[in-house]
Amino acid sequence: MDTWMRFMSGDGEIVFGRVEGGYLHEYQSLDRRVPTGEVLSTRALTPLAPCAPGKIVALWNNYHALAAKLDKPVPAHPLFLLKSASSVVGAGHAIRRPVSYAGKIVYEGELGIVIGRRCRDSSLEEAEAAILGYTIVNDVTAADLLGENPHFPQWCRAKGFDTFCCIGPAIVSGFDWQAGSVVTTLDGVERQNYPLADMVFSPAEQVSLISQDLTLEPGDVIACGTSLGVGSIKDGATVAVTIAGIGTLSNTLVGTQDAAAAMVAGAANAA
Amino acid sequence: MDTWMRFMSGDGEIVFGRVEGGYLHEYQSLDRRVPTGEVLSTRALTPLAPCAPGKIVALWNNYHALAAKLDKPVPAHPLFLLKSASSVVGAGHAIRRPVSYAGKIVYEGELGIVIGRRCRDSSLEEAEAAILGYTIVNDVTAADLLGENPHFPQWCRAKGFDTFCCIGPAIVSGFDWQAGSVVTTLDGVERQNYPLADMVFSPAEQVSLISQDLTLEPGDVIACGTSLGVGSIKDGATVAVTIAGIGTLSNTLVGTQDAAAAMVAGAANAA
Repeated sequence: MDTWMRFMSGDGEIVFGRVEGGYLHEYQSLDRRVPTGEVLSTRALTPLAPCAPGKIVALWNNYHALAAKLDKPVPAHPLFLLKSASSVVGAGHAIRRPVSYAGKIVYEGELGIVIGRRCRDSSLEEAEAAILGYTIVNDVTAADLLGENPHFPQWCRAKGFDTFCCIGPAIVSGFDWQAGSVVTTLDGVERQNYPLADMVFSPAEQVSLISQDLTLEPGDVIACGTSLGVGSIKDGATVAVTIAGIGTLSNTLVGTQDAAAAMVAGAANAA
Repeated sequence: MDTWMRFMSGDGEIVFGRVEGGYLHEYQSLDRRVPTGEVLSTRALTPLAPCAPGKIVALWNNYHALAAKLDKPVPAHPLFLLKSASSVVGAGHAIRRPVSYAGKIVYEGELGIVIGRRCRDSSLEEAEAAILGYTIVNDVTAADLLGENPHFPQWCRAKGFDTFCCIGPAIVSGFDWQAGSVVTTLDGVERQNYPLADMVFSPAEQVSLISQDLTLEPGDVIACGTSLGVGSIKDGATVAVTIAGIGTLSNTLVGTQDAAAAMVAGAANAA
């Protein structure tokens, strides 16, 4: 079980490495996992999202319990959309309400798969070996936009706004997802608590099948989809997604009136 | 009217710059458009897609003629999906049929907008100034996947396969899009010929409105949508999209039986 994190140092440099006992053992990059020899106290560092994905593949309808509730058949191939690379923020960073959108914003607590090596048409075994580790994703969604246009469901727009992909706090290698669960709280009240073993496509199946569609690169993230208990976030509310063994990903939704202040505060924390 | 291109040099280095009279005047990068002083003959260089977009925003239903044919109302905001960064190839590169897909593959000849500076919540004037120039896009689509699952339209999957976003051959600054047209031929036979002036959202409107949804970065591409005449490509057929003033983007669809050979040939040409 290795824990990988990414930080901004005091002088504005981005550092990546393995965290142990309050210290970061720096590595060249997620792609080139070679130790640099540097060891830094994490106290002096600002956490960022643990990776900077080029692609974020977000699954829909990947839990049996949710499929049953929606009364939809379980899919034969992962159903996915792409979230924009510009939507990523780390743990503790504000989710900003878009200036142009006054509607409902919902949280979706999810397991995230982080790719460690390039995958194309990968077998299940190759896919398993290509998973660097697991992280937590809050797949934030401007829910009213999904069906706003009756002729075209706006998945990419509704889920692609800046700050709408919270990822963190860490990537944990060797995490036993089959025994894990996702617990989401809204201002401290539990709203989601579902077992990862209820997934339709296992992580290795997702990586293998999706690698037939598009080449996955180191640092790319697959958000495994959510299950029961999705709900709306009021401006000012805090969503905390916990997966025991990985950590807690906590983010607060900031309304447009506070957004200017949050942007200034968040600038130092940007990926 | 500046013409920007990207190449691979003989020793495998990627070079970007302004092309004039058969010579590349090298610049540091698309983001930092500062001349390096190097001048190279383009004859010794292999063309790549003219940019390496982090995001490709692809519009649906952005031409009045197509909206009328589909009997859909003109949208109030650009309707878009995201194509994956891994789908990009340049002019002359093979479009590879996915190993797992035997269905219909269609061409869509389109104007591409290339972003030159970061845009977030940009006014029309800011958006206009942020456009580095225009290119040509063939927005290749695995058409049978779009409606394969009746509960979830698979736009990102159908349009996100490796090699399904042909971009090139150049980015032309100062191109007068209002006077331009898109001409697509399939094995030399004209299939599309539509005026860019028929667009629902002008390029500056697209950049301004989309920048309210997600931050656009230098090198990002907006594919402006297609109009009448979309059709299917048989394995082995060549699609050439021409916009006078920009150039011709020509790509051949390679079937799975020839894909292994094409991958070897294409490796040297990969972005």
